[in-house]
Amino acid sequence: MPRMRPSPPLRMLLAAALLCIAPLLRAEPKTVASVDSPGKVLQVALQLDDGKPSYRVQRLGDTVIGESRLGFQLRDGRLDRDLAVLAQAMRSVDETWEQPWGERRYVRNHYNELRVELGERSGLRRRFTVVFRVYDDGLGFRYSFPQQAGLREAIIDEELTEFDIVPEATAWWIPAGEPIHSEYLYRQTPLNQVALAHTPITLRSRDGLHIALHEAALVDYAGMWLRRGDGQRLHAQLSPSAQGWKVKRSLPFDTPWRTVQIADHAGGLVDSNLILNLNEPNALGDVRWVHPAKYVGVWWSMHLNQETWATGPKHGATTANTRRYIDFAAAHGFRGVLVEGWNPGWNGEWFGNGGGFDFTRPTPDFDIEALSAYAAKRGVHLIGHHETGCAVQHYEDQLDAALELYARLGVDTFKTGYVCDDGQVDRRNAAGGPLWREWHDGQFMAQHHLKVVRAAAARHLSVNAHEPIKDTGLRRTYPNWLSREGARGMEYNAWGQPPNPPEHEVNLVFTRMLAGPMDYTPGILSLKGRDGQPIPSTLARQLALYVAIYSPIQMAADLPEHYLQHRDAFRFIEDVAVDWDDSRVLDGEVGDYVTIVRKDRHSRDWYLGSITDEHGRVLPVSLSFLEPGVRYRAEIYRDGDAANYRSNPFDFVREQREVGSGDDLQLKLAPGGGQAIRFTPVDAAAAAGGNSAARR
Amino acid sequence: MPRMRPSPPLRMLLAAALLCIAPLLRAEPKTVASVDSPGKVLQVALQLDDGKPSYRVQRLGDTVIGESRLGFQLRDGRLDRDLAVLAQAMRSVDETWEQPWGERRYVRNHYNELRVELGERSGLRRRFTVVFRVYDDGLGFRYSFPQQAGLREAIIDEELTEFDIVPEATAWWIPAGEPIHSEYLYRQTPLNQVALAHTPITLRSRDGLHIALHEAALVDYAGMWLRRGDGQRLHAQLSPSAQGWKVKRSLPFDTPWRTVQIADHAGGLVDSNLILNLNEPNALGDVRWVHPAKYVGVWWSMHLNQETWATGPKHGATTANTRRYIDFAAAHGFRGVLVEGWNPGWNGEWFGNGGGFDFTRPTPDFDIEALSAYAAKRGVHLIGHHETGCAVQHYEDQLDAALELYARLGVDTFKTGYVCDDGQVDRRNAAGGPLWREWHDGQFMAQHHLKVVRAAAARHLSVNAHEPIKDTGLRRTYPNWLSREGARGMEYNAWGQPPNPPEHEVNLVFTRMLAGPMDYTPGILSLKGRDGQPIPSTLARQLALYVAIYSPIQMAADLPEHYLQHRDAFRFIEDVAVDWDDSRVLDGEVGDYVTIVRKDRHSRDWYLGSITDEHGRVLPVSLSFLEPGVRYRAEIYRDGDAANYRSNPFDFVREQREVGSGDDLQLKLAPGGGQAIRFTPVDAAAAAGGNSAARR
Repeated sequence: MPRMRPSPPLRMLLAAALLCIAPLLRAEPKTVASVDSPGKVLQVALQLDDGKPSYRVQRLGDTVIGESRLGFQLRDGRLDRDLAVLAQAMRSVDETWEQPWGERRYVRNHYNELRVELGERSGLRRRFTVVFRVYDDGLGFRYSFPQQAGLREAIIDEELTEFDIVPEATAWWIPAGEPIHSEYLYRQTPLNQVALAHTPITLRSRDGLHIALHEAALVDYAGMWLRRGDGQRLHAQLSPSAQGWKVKRSLPFDTPWRTVQIADHAGGLVDSNLILNLNEPNALGDVRWVHPAKYVGVWWSMHLNQETWATGPKHGATTANTRRYIDFAAAHGFRGVLVEGWNPGWNGEWFGNGGGFDFTRPTPDFDIEALSAYAAKRGVHLIGHHETGCAVQHYEDQLDAALELYARLGVDTFKTGYVCDDGQVDRRNAAGGPLWREWHDGQFMAQHHLKVVRAAAARHLSVNAHEPIKDTGLRRTYPNWLSREGARGMEYNAWGQPPNPPEHEVNLVFTRMLAGPMDYTPGILSLKGRDGQPIPSTLARQLALYVAIYSPIQMAADLPEHYLQHRDAFRFIEDVAVDWDDSRVLDGEVGDYVTIVRKDRHSRDWYLGSITDEHGRVLPVSLSFLEPGVRYRAEIYRDGDAANYRSNPFDFVREQREVGSGDDLQLKLAPGGGQAIRFTPVDAAAAAGGNSAARR
Repeated sequence: MPRMRPSPPLRMLLAAALLCIAPLLRAEPKTVASVDSPGKVLQVALQLDDGKPSYRVQRLGDTVIGESRLGFQLRDGRLDRDLAVLAQAMRSVDETWEQPWGERRYVRNHYNELRVELGERSGLRRRFTVVFRVYDDGLGFRYSFPQQAGLREAIIDEELTEFDIVPEATAWWIPAGEPIHSEYLYRQTPLNQVALAHTPITLRSRDGLHIALHEAALVDYAGMWLRRGDGQRLHAQLSPSAQGWKVKRSLPFDTPWRTVQIADHAGGLVDSNLILNLNEPNALGDVRWVHPAKYVGVWWSMHLNQETWATGPKHGATTANTRRYIDFAAAHGFRGVLVEGWNPGWNGEWFGNGGGFDFTRPTPDFDIEALSAYAAKRGVHLIGHHETGCAVQHYEDQLDAALELYARLGVDTFKTGYVCDDGQVDRRNAAGGPLWREWHDGQFMAQHHLKVVRAAAARHLSVNAHEPIKDTGLRRTYPNWLSREGARGMEYNAWGQPPNPPEHEVNLVFTRMLAGPMDYTPGILSLKGRDGQPIPSTLARQLALYVAIYSPIQMAADLPEHYLQHRDAFRFIEDVAVDWDDSRVLDGEVGDYVTIVRKDRHSRDWYLGSITDEHGRVLPVSLSFLEPGVRYRAEIYRDGDAANYRSNPFDFVREQREVGSGDDLQLKLAPGGGQAIRFTPVDAAAAAGGNSAARR
């Protein structure tokens, strides 16, 4: 139905009439400045209502975010009223930059920027600038605090930013402020039933508009949670600190960017480069020492209870066992071998109690010197592991020595871990007093993670953080921050109650993955967890995860002996690339299914991954992403006709077809199923003798 | 969340236990036979529960239609119980047939068929066969009554077919049994709030499954409405007749097919050929005398109140005025000129009171002989018009003479009309007694429409029925049944309160258009209705409708003088084809937006049409449908950056680009907007001197 509304002159008359009758009614907020996106898709307006700043966002004439407040609760008084415009400026940027590794090689950064400086009209006369960068597929805005006399240090008790979502929407979200941080199954509820949520939070309106709220460049600040107020209005709620305040900064400083992605398709959120574009450029220079790669490791066996992190009769991280993994990695083209439980401190209750960990020497049954030398001889690299048990200051105390050890041994990538007993890490008071408890997303941990990443970069080491702070695109600035966890991963399929239902991995693509890479550790071809618990997945789906869930380091997480039992399927894991020239979502709906294609950065091959929820699907896909005029051999790894994740997960077909860019395929996915395809140009395939081309 | 359920042995034990405790509980229905679709996507089972037949439909392991009853309420007793299987048979068919005209030239018909003959075990021992044809994208089933001793004539008081939709769904539907038949705006409600609905009715489950219910081959039977019972269970309710019964047939006979289309995407419903495949092949032989074409006519001027159907000072159908339209058609490549109001009977209250219409002679100011000769000389054909005012028997009485007139004059296409005052047509009792009132979808009108179509075919004339019976794909059998109305058309934009909101045309694509072509009469470039009422559309959208809403005859419905005021946009209407080699929905969501591409049957050109609802959209589309290796000139007719159907509908851009099959486009649609594109191979474009190629 068309919306009928009075024409502008009539509206003005009405407003005038109301003012005459009721002069004390508050005036309409006054638009101070506004800015369009380059293609005039989005329009952002900054308003002042009697000195109180707010903003709103329109898309192609529809209001997406209604009048939403801006400002701060500072220790020395609210900074969100009595403000006037001191200055404003606009600029346009259209540049293309290159990623050292990533979902795509070239990223276009095309936005219009509006900067409005606001200052208090009385009192302390504090001031800050609101900076909006508006793209066709979303926007970011942040607060920039210049040096000023009335505010030498900002103690932020709360940020007062709001997001009043106008179209009635469904939300996919996980709760914030809970004990196991971000490791929850996604909830699908009306937006007006959200309580306190992590970001990214993904919304779909009744009319098919997709919106995701998150942040970019979280540096020396507290992570933003979103608390719902009235209706669909979301309020920033900064992650707490043990200090009472949320953030403490000396001026000048910038806050992280608050981001709003907006697209007509679910896939439009995933294909957006907004978060990366809002981060600072590479600060590390030449990073050819960062290695996207696949890896195996001593890991799943512990989650199965077949081996232990702790020393003893079932210890996993022994010299002999690690040598077996190195041999397997060398034979099958994996660069890395992760070994957990290699160092002292695992015996006893280490969860949230990591004060006993020693990161500078191995356990006696793990000959790290010999193993790293043996690995190097076979073209393989050990991957280090630093589980902190949330004793963060204890870890920082050993950090330099620990990293020196790895640098000396050629262990050029390491995994960190922050498993707490109640969701908060331990921080020693600077004066050596009592322990303080800090949240994973608070300012302290934002500082800690970058401290580790910078210390690693100084030694040409790369980091893969588990139980981490949320990803806000800092891999652009620090390309050695390769990957992280930050969601319910594969280990829940070993022992979780329930294990991850099929929709979880689809939900990840449209929520968690908007933030950045995730080390999900796929590829459990045995499809069994601890004590034989069935994993809710078909066999083909485990392969599709390597394309669907992006990470520049991908684990083949199952036991070597299980891979040898499923050689036909394992071949895809051997072949699949991890670093990409380009990536595109072909099709997908939040929580239902997704199909993604990616082009290998080091060959002409393309890879496709498609996964569904608990329902089977028949998805037509056009192969137009292939190079026109080139014939490709498609190696198809699909669900068998009778496959079903509940009753028949191993029904699986590997088959080949010759295809071109003009062809269409019908992907038939079983309930809980998936499909993976490798496309190789026929000439390249012939040159490789019909066998796998370059493996890494 | 994975559904936990007891393993089969446990379930059997539970069932046995319940039977022991409560032996009178009814037994589970017994599956008599089942059949898979060729690709094992759908599975249909026929069940008998103590002699009562039912069926259910599963898709890739999920139940889509739960146990749903089959049978009839016959005048001589219910025929839905005490039944046993007499015989059953299966077969597979995979054939490809050619359409003389249509959305695509070749249609694949690939199904597995199950036939089960059921007979009463006592009493009259009546019997019938249920026939299921199961495709990967849907199914049809019908009842087939053989000759038999216990039933010589079937008087059907109701058909007892049910559709118990299992997944929780949203429905798009229009009410049935209402005064203006099918000319309603679509309602979007939870399926469990549907009352009595027309078909096609379109459903979308929470998990993204799209389902449409309709029927195919409605011949000598009453149209099926759907009445909701408990929950999401829909019951067939046959359109009534004035006789008291719903259908009366002598045996043998077949009912129409009850159809269920099922797809993972909204577009999958539109791309399906199910309805056509379930109709009988072409019964008319060589139909090169049927002419898909574009036309103009004396029509919109009457809806604007600028001219009248009735004779008098403002009479539209005059010799001079028609000559003006013929000249315009000849100059701009239109084959047809429709003239309404050409015959006696329009003066006075003719709505539902058409007894005064004379179909065999023109009004004195309309020289039909001279005009048809003049048209022929200019390569143009008059299009005839038979408004019955619902005096159907009165029309049938003149039918032969009326068609003879057209055949003699070369008027080879005619439009019929059935405008009633209360939703029912008039039928004279066979004995000449009182008038009976019949519904548009009842058995009488099913007979009447085919009587007109067959009489037309005998004279090589083609039919375009307005206020018609619903389309069930009979154009396959009778290709001279070119098009029809059967939904709220463009004239509501002249005088409707409200006019058609933008979502209406999107809804049409995913509901009404599943049945077959619609003569929507697009192209009102003036964007104004009666007394200047704004039409809820941008300019570019009016062009996109020619591709989005399929009909083999398409009107350029606006006044000639308006087209000359918008020459840039009008050029697309001149160029666009009406008969297609192929058609594909690239993208779309019910009620939100749709993008369709079609390939011209008489050139290498492709056309794209995209329309949205009241929201603006940015839609990426891949041009992979284009021939690989060929460069195309894309003539783009799009909304201007400031376009908005409410405030700025005329903001419009026509621009050209060179593109190939490897390119992507971003379609930016304004609120209430659209986009139309013609793709011409560059060599062909050059050969045509950069100007329009073959027009028709």
